[in-house]
Amino acid sequence: MGKLFGSIEAGGTKFVCAVGNADLMILESTTFPTEKPAETLQKAVDFFKPFYDEGSLAAISVGSFGPIDVAIGSKTYGFVTTTPKPHWANADVIGFLKAQLDLPMYFTTDVNSSAYGEKILDSSLNSLVYYTIGTGIGAGAIQGEDFIGGVSHTEMGHTFVKRHADDLDFAGVCPFHNDCLEGVAAGPSLEARTGVRGENIALESPVWDIQAYYIAQAAVQATLILRPERIIFGGGVMAQEHMMNRVRKQFAAQLNGYVTVPDLVDYLKTPAIADNASATVGNFALAKREYERMVCKK
Amino acid sequence: MGKLFGSIEAGGTKFVCAVGNADLMILESTTFPTEKPAETLQKAVDFFKPFYDEGSLAAISVGSFGPIDVAIGSKTYGFVTTTPKPHWANADVIGFLKAQLDLPMYFTTDVNSSAYGEKILDSSLNSLVYYTIGTGIGAGAIQGEDFIGGVSHTEMGHTFVKRHADDLDFAGVCPFHNDCLEGVAAGPSLEARTGVRGENIALESPVWDIQAYYIAQAAVQATLILRPERIIFGGGVMAQEHMMNRVRKQFAAQLNGYVTVPDLVDYLKTPAIADNASATVGNFALAKREYERMVCKK
Repeated sequence: MGKLFGSIEAGGTKFVCAVGNADLMILESTTFPTEKPAETLQKAVDFFKPFYDEGSLAAISVGSFGPIDVAIGSKTYGFVTTTPKPHWANADVIGFLKAQLDLPMYFTTDVNSSAYGEKILDSSLNSLVYYTIGTGIGAGAIQGEDFIGGVSHTEMGHTFVKRHADDLDFAGVCPFHNDCLEGVAAGPSLEARTGVRGENIALESPVWDIQAYYIAQAAVQATLILRPERIIFGGGVMAQEHMMNRVRKQFAAQLNGYVTVPDLVDYLKTPAIADNASATVGNFALAKREYERMVCKK
Repeated sequence: MGKLFGSIEAGGTKFVCAVGNADLMILESTTFPTEKPAETLQKAVDFFKPFYDEGSLAAISVGSFGPIDVAIGSKTYGFVTTTPKPHWANADVIGFLKAQLDLPMYFTTDVNSSAYGEKILDSSLNSLVYYTIGTGIGAGAIQGEDFIGGVSHTEMGHTFVKRHADDLDFAGVCPFHNDCLEGVAAGPSLEARTGVRGENIALESPVWDIQAYYIAQAAVQATLILRPERIIFGGGVMAQEHMMNRVRKQFAAQLNGYVTVPDLVDYLKTPAIADNASATVGNFALAKREYERMVCKK
């Protein structure tokens, strides 16, 4: 049996753990709710333990909700840091895992893992951005072999956006910034405006174009600042088929041809990897890369 | 005599050419207005020719106004591309220079050159962003040894910003986007609002805080998307001493502690290199790097 690689997608509401082979195929996976750190992380350890004990598991990559500390050498490397999520502030994720699974581990954000998965799937891509638009908004970005981010990972969900003329009275729902991108375009903003959950809002509602107007601005920011080859939109909001075309239309109007981008059907896309598995595939690939780096060092 | 390195800062209004040594000291320089491409570039060639003929000039780096094509292998690599500046659209800058100066050349944006100069000066820096706020707004960004930009260079001056509540009626002056960052915060926006040139506007005018509000948003975008160690502001607007503190104050309010940044006096700064020479020093260093890469390849 060849080497196996582990993925932990540590989300704010659930954990998805999986074991894959060197071809990045999922061999086994499990999902459980995100409860207190010790009990949740122990479930992850228990899932990987049989593969670890038989000696087949070579490395693990964790793609986590954030903010997290990814600065190697930092005292809190491998921690979830200042999250408002109860019990998780200053949780030592990598330390907990390493105490029972003595393996090379890679630690990054869930959106970086997803970005990496999408990049691995299309080997022609050198750069891309992966946004998730759901309960919150985050993004991961890659240029060459590196994740974008100098001292830490990106937090692209919290930049400010030009307010839509028909939405100036909406205060926004971000507890830090009120009307940053997440505050006006994440799922909860829809319910805050309309009193109705997103999935129950009629397609004719003007709120969809308002939301698309903001998401398109995020794509303009990513385009002009990072100049990626592709921007991928995952998350519950963008899984609704009508949204991507609304975003493409607004994006074209906003960018107004200022820089050349590919045909928008190819440039602004939903994930190529089905079943929300971008992060899992990305984690397998990152775990494999980490393993190979460790082997090279020896 | 050791190897010498050439810098061309190709600005939209003037060219600054300089020759420096391996310690990045300026030995000789010249400045002339940016006229038609052939005559302007010939002046640059004439300046470098004596150093080239004596065999001391090892490489040249060009930091140019844009947009430019920096994609090695592209048919229009080394060109200024779609600029509205008369005569300069599709001007082959590197081709013109190489025809008379057969040397390794590096080609990037003027703001990338400036960013590189500031990074070289402070060897502790691994990542930074350099904005110029003047007639237009642009930025260069570095992470590690790489300039930020997947398929091309950044265009950070044209992202959208949340409009200031007291400025909603101002349409903005960007010919592409009306009220993008450049349209509401570059120098010409001041005159468009007040009818008075920026240098003649009283310090008590509310327009300064409006402008600082937008520039602070640019810093928030750069902070959250790129997570740099420092953001430097060059250009005429920021050379006014009162502006940096206004920007710092607005930045702190907008970011609202969401991510940790250094003390703002250290984080948001004017250039450390005096006399607008950041780009020249950066070009010397980039030319030297290019020369060393070429030597290594042989």
